[in-house]
Amino acid sequence: MVAHQVAIQAGLRHRLYTELEPSARGRPGLSRTNVALVWLVIASFIVFALETEPDMPADASIWIAWINLAILAAFGVEYVVRLWVIGEDPRYRGLGGRLRYIFTPYALADLAAFLPELLWLAFAHPEANDQTLMFLRVLRLVRLIKLARFVPAFDVLGAGMRRAGSQLVTALALALALVYVSAVALYFIEGVGEGRAEFASVVRSVWWSVATLTTVGYGDVYPVTVAGRIAASIIALAGIGVVALPAGIFASAFADELRERETRRKEEKAQPPSDSGPTSGP
Amino acid sequence: MVAHQVAIQAGLRHRLYTELEPSARGRPGLSRTNVALVWLVIASFIVFALETEPDMPADASIWIAWINLAILAAFGVEYVVRLWVIGEDPRYRGLGGRLRYIFTPYALADLAAFLPELLWLAFAHPEANDQTLMFLRVLRLVRLIKLARFVPAFDVLGAGMRRAGSQLVTALALALALVYVSAVALYFIEGVGEGRAEFASVVRSVWWSVATLTTVGYGDVYPVTVAGRIAASIIALAGIGVVALPAGIFASAFADELRERETRRKEEKAQPPSDSGPTSGP
Amino acid sequence: MVAHQVAIQAGLRHRLYTELEPSARGRPGLSRTNVALVWLVIASFIVFALETEPDMPADASIWIAWINLAILAAFGVEYVVRLWVIGEDPRYRGLGGRLRYIFTPYALADLAAFLPELLWLAFAHPEANDQTLMFLRVLRLVRLIKLARFVPAFDVLGAGMRRAGSQLVTALALALALVYVSAVALYFIEGVGEGRAEFASVVRSVWWSVATLTTVGYGDVYPVTVAGRIAASIIALAGIGVVALPAGIFASAFADELRERETRRKEEKAQPPSDSGPTSGP
Amino acid sequence: MVAHQVAIQAGLRHRLYTELEPSARGRPGLSRTNVALVWLVIASFIVFALETEPDMPADASIWIAWINLAILAAFGVEYVVRLWVIGEDPRYRGLGGRLRYIFTPYALADLAAFLPELLWLAFAHPEANDQTLMFLRVLRLVRLIKLARFVPAFDVLGAGMRRAGSQLVTALALALALVYVSAVALYFIEGVGEGRAEFASVVRSVWWSVATLTTVGYGDVYPVTVAGRIAASIIALAGIGVVALPAGIFASAFADELRERETRRKEEKAQPPSDSGPTSGP
Repeated sequence: MVAHQVAIQAGLRHRLYTELEPSARGRPGLSRTNVALVWLVIASFIVFALETEPDMPADASIWIAWINLAILAAFGVEYVVRLWVIGEDPRYRGLGGRLRYIFTPYALADLAAFLPELLWLAFAHPEANDQTLMFLRVLRLVRLIKLARFVPAFDVLGAGMRRAGSQLVTALALALALVYVSAVALYFIEGVGEGRAEFASVVRSVWWSVATLTTVGYGDVYPVTVAGRIAASIIALAGIGVVALPAGIFASAFADELRERETRRKEEKAQPPSDSGPTSGP
Repeated sequence: MVAHQVAIQAGLRHRLYTELEPSARGRPGLSRTNVALVWLVIASFIVFALETEPDMPADASIWIAWINLAILAAFGVEYVVRLWVIGEDPRYRGLGGRLRYIFTPYALADLAAFLPELLWLAFAHPEANDQTLMFLRVLRLVRLIKLARFVPAFDVLGAGMRRAGSQLVTALALALALVYVSAVALYFIEGVGEGRAEFASVVRSVWWSVATLTTVGYGDVYPVTVAGRIAASIIALAGIGVVALPAGIFASAFADELRERETRRKEEKAQPPSDSGPTSGP
Repeated sequence: MVAHQVAIQAGLRHRLYTELEPSARGRPGLSRTNVALVWLVIASFIVFALETEPDMPADASIWIAWINLAILAAFGVEYVVRLWVIGEDPRYRGLGGRLRYIFTPYALADLAAFLPELLWLAFAHPEANDQTLMFLRVLRLVRLIKLARFVPAFDVLGAGMRRAGSQLVTALALALALVYVSAVALYFIEGVGEGRAEFASVVRSVWWSVATLTTVGYGDVYPVTVAGRIAASIIALAGIGVVALPAGIFASAFADELRERETRRKEEKAQPPSDSGPTSGP
Repeated sequence: MVAHQVAIQAGLRHRLYTELEPSARGRPGLSRTNVALVWLVIASFIVFALETEPDMPADASIWIAWINLAILAAFGVEYVVRLWVIGEDPRYRGLGGRLRYIFTPYALADLAAFLPELLWLAFAHPEANDQTLMFLRVLRLVRLIKLARFVPAFDVLGAGMRRAGSQLVTALALALALVYVSAVALYFIEGVGEGRAEFASVVRSVWWSVATLTTVGYGDVYPVTVAGRIAASIIALAGIGVVALPAGIFASAFADELRERETRRKEEKAQPPSDSGPTSGP
């Protein structure tokens, strides 16, 4: 009887493991549970955005609070289940393995994604410290790390940057030098020459030159003198290309990185995989 | 006599069919009738735009109403003629074929492009419901589908997106994550820290971060504190490249798709076509 | 004596011809006279820009008027000299040839660049018609055609467009459709729904959608409702790539065209030229 | 004893030389001292930016003044040490060599980076001329040349421009012509037609057309008439690609230049260097 139960448990654990762990899944793509978890993280970000809105009607706020609680509970259940099924991985087998697992970055992010806020909801006085609440809210951004487990995008970002390497640094140095020199030019023309408050220091002029050279152009600061407008026109026409350089270099490195990974993945699929993850028997 | 008339009718139908159906046309490009129809759709969009203008002088409004009626009539005639000549296509021959044709997307779009509004103009009370009129106006956008039959652009759009595939999704996920994180950063710096209404919630800050990272920069919302401006400068300089990534990936996939189609079309032209659509004799 | 003088004249004419006619010049680049003419055209544009400025001090205006007169005179001299030396070209030899030359586009542009304004300055009443003056000023833009003779850029522009061909048309159709659909969306959300004057018709909303999708973002029109801002955010994030497509396609076709021309020019230089323009002896 | 001291001195000089002179360093990358100098230059630019800020609290200003003095002193020490160790380079050996070195651009920039301001701090009357101070501050921008010694970016900028060559000139001519023609169009439509002050001359309209065609769009100037908005829409949709052309051509030339240099550097590394800079014995 007990042996039978153990076998059932082991089978369930193995099935849950292949369901939850992307690398243990034979096929490409995400399992249904993980797709649901991705949507749950996205939902939690929308909840966070709505929670901070002061004009939210009271009954909507109550709904949002319940949804938030449900998400926290779901993340809690996910954490416990992951802790159980990770034993399928030979590296994290047994109690010592579990302890090692708990201190992996993903597991820490999973824990930080629900525990602090759940504790706060359970034990905080109604008139609790606002700063703690603020800190807890910032902490919710660790849920982005939960996403990184499923979506390779965040991982590719870093790889793209490393790939662009010294080219990116060179282009960035040029862009920043141009932003600075433009700010100095307008500081002398508009700030020193005309006494305009928005250009009264190089620091303030940098705000203008960033807004102009990135072509955002809010319109809160712009030159009004003839000399200032001539300088700004030359800076805009000649400088936008230089400031757009790092973005272009990064974009091309990022696209190369993505294409290469796709090719590699297809080649791997073409070959029969020799080792398809840990196996476990009853 | 009757046999002679039938032969004339069949000849006319065949000629009209090759005139109206782009795929039945031997040569590349659009037939004169179809070019006229494209211009008619464009005219109908201009009419729609002008109709909604409240400052339009009264006599211009009357002209516009007449032009609108003429366009509706033309679309009606086109629909009836297409229904007749489609019999040349073996798939839609006979009464049953016509019924099948009526429920194809293009035929439904053709019907929706004139019938509802024509019925409304004929039967509506002068003090008719404004909401119905609104709905009818939105319905006019189905005329874009009429264009899709002639201009391959709308078709290529979807193909380009499929081609970019997972790269596009990855880049889009990154861009949205950056928009969100930027909004959260400014929410804490400008909204929580300084109590500014425009950044009072993450939801509101998203409007700023979209306007900034797409470089639209309306200027209705921008940071005013030193910390907010430093954060916004870093976000703008580093983030614009990331938010421009999906556009770049899509643009390159779209251009590749267009180039490939052109090559394929040229190759097809070089070979003698083995089967040039349905043939019909008298 | 006379024969000697004729020989001197013919030599001068040949020298002036190779100096003035870019295609008759053996070496690449522009002759000194033509470089001077390019600068003269540029100066005439600066003069035009300054002339229209109402806040110009009176003595500066007088200077500008003199410079304008000098430029007109120079263009007149250029015209007469060109008319004389063009006889070196076998196509325009003799009186009949000169008449044919006068009606070439470049010669007409050369004439329109100075004669109308010179006549006006000579014969106009001081209280002459303002509209004539306006027309004369618009006419000055034909001087751009003078530039086209020397700078191949304006010529390449057209070639680049033809090269991009149907791709450019497809991308442009998509971009315009997106601008229109975006305008319709905001018209219904902000104009019909909220009664905002800036979105009160599709025509007016188009101004917003152009400003947004090109990322110019003046800030004179922007959505203020929640639904409008959500729609605008989606439109901006997804649409900017589509509206930037025609520019990208044109840019790549333009760059390809320029590169190809440069390669061709280098190849031509590598081969000894078999026929280097009309030759003339004393 | 003395010979021993000389040997120590010579060893120190050689070590300092390889530490300070990037080209004398066997390995790629910058030495620790040079990295520190780069950061010192960056710090000096931040100090300059903060010094000009009028709202800086008094005690922060005193700190900044001290930091400025420390940076000046460090640049002074660097100058003297460089003057001593440059003797390792055969070109600048002995007193005559040192004199030649002093007049190299880098050495002049090094001198201008600290001496004028140090002299001013030492000898200026408290009520000294503001214009001198202003000049000294502008002079600080020569520190960018100090950076150029270490960061190849500034050097690559020029090489990229030469590489793009005539393509860049052609694209720039087109862009400027478009800016001008757009300004003229809006001048006639909005300025002459409607009497709007912002478009009252071609010169003023140029400010609008630069802001629009670079997509900066401050929002201080924009058309308000129907004709003006139609013209501006067409200009924006069609023209942005043309004005972005020079930036695109430069960006691609810049990236090509960087890639080529990297390849060359790798090839050089693959081969054993035959001559690794000046050698010096005791």
